[in-house]
Amino acid sequence: MELSKRQETILEIVKKEGPITGEQIAERLRLTRATLRPDMAILTMSGMLEARPRVGYFYSGKKPGQELAEKLHQITINDIKSVPVVVSEQCTVYDAVVTMFIEDVGTMFVVREGGLLEGVISRKDLLKTTLGGQDIHKLPVGVIMTRMPNVVYVESDASVLEAARKLITHEVDALPVVRQVKGKDDHKDLEVVGRFSKTNVTRLFVELGEGAY
Amino acid sequence: MELSKRQETILEIVKKEGPITGEQIAERLRLTRATLRPDMAILTMSGMLEARPRVGYFYSGKKPGQELAEKLHQITINDIKSVPVVVSEQCTVYDAVVTMFIEDVGTMFVVREGGLLEGVISRKDLLKTTLGGQDIHKLPVGVIMTRMPNVVYVESDASVLEAARKLITHEVDALPVVRQVKGKDDHKDLEVVGRFSKTNVTRLFVELGEGAY
Repeated sequence: MELSKRQETILEIVKKEGPITGEQIAERLRLTRATLRPDMAILTMSGMLEARPRVGYFYSGKKPGQELAEKLHQITINDIKSVPVVVSEQCTVYDAVVTMFIEDVGTMFVVREGGLLEGVISRKDLLKTTLGGQDIHKLPVGVIMTRMPNVVYVESDASVLEAARKLITHEVDALPVVRQVKGKDDHKDLEVVGRFSKTNVTRLFVELGEGAY
Repeated sequence: MELSKRQETILEIVKKEGPITGEQIAERLRLTRATLRPDMAILTMSGMLEARPRVGYFYSGKKPGQELAEKLHQITINDIKSVPVVVSEQCTVYDAVVTMFIEDVGTMFVVREGGLLEGVISRKDLLKTTLGGQDIHKLPVGVIMTRMPNVVYVESDASVLEAARKLITHEVDALPVVRQVKGKDDHKDLEVVGRFSKTNVTRLFVELGEGAY
């Protein structure tokens, strides 16, 4: 939505002097209130201005791009997550690589009974290990994985934006999507319920661009 | 921007019967034109309805989410591309893996003199090769790379949306960003000028969500 020059001016006035009544704004611009009505409607309905009876208009602090930002906040991981690919800690590095190729993923999660998160293993970890000269037919992934509590994860009711930020901040390609479950002695365990990767973000981006949301 | 129930109704009327005058819409709703004015302003300024003098209002076909879609179309690769990491065709697989770790990228481009695109090599290609039992200290990347014309690339003035769509459609993590140059005998060559990956999309997504665009 593009603002007209008059709307920009109104926004500036309210920003500086709000709360301010419609009458006062009209006076400033030497226009009638009736002339301004459509502009005021646009500015309040888009959320840029807020109006309170008997107080006047004030600036909400929302930028025009904010609508987009809010939309991105509303989409949750649950809406777009993928199925997780998991292996056990005893799985050999060789078998893990084979699984990775069969499933065509870049990151796998290492779990114990009940699908509880133990660690994460990436294509990068595996590549490093295959170079290392160790016997990958015997080496278990448990030795080379990133282990809890050093795993970056996301809960399934988080927003996509929060998860995308984690991918960038922690420089990882994918996150396990988890659900907290109560373990022994009130210890909290994390059950792996999904996978969230840069591919999910990219696919969502394309769908947003095609107007699917 | 959320539409009110009345605005939704107006949209429906115009969709079915447009072009239709403001007077006719007012009659349908048993309201005065003055009452409708703010609603009509909202609908035209957001681009959902278009108005033509002496003809009336008609439906533009734009959905409320379209604003977002248009914004995504406007951002070009040039705005957000990364620096490309390149190797020559004679580079050994071992050296390529080392370069990949040093530069911390998932995809590298194979170029000949002048930075002209010959092929692409991914973490996945390298992982497959290190498993294969060949002597990676001798094997050149030229043997295992994806070679032109099978490389998916994008030109630097393309929209981010177009490039993101290519990443999804062709199931690759990154694309070389290229510029066409005239080679021998009018043959067109592609000079590598950047790298565009799912990381770029994810970072842009975060920035959009934070209202940076």
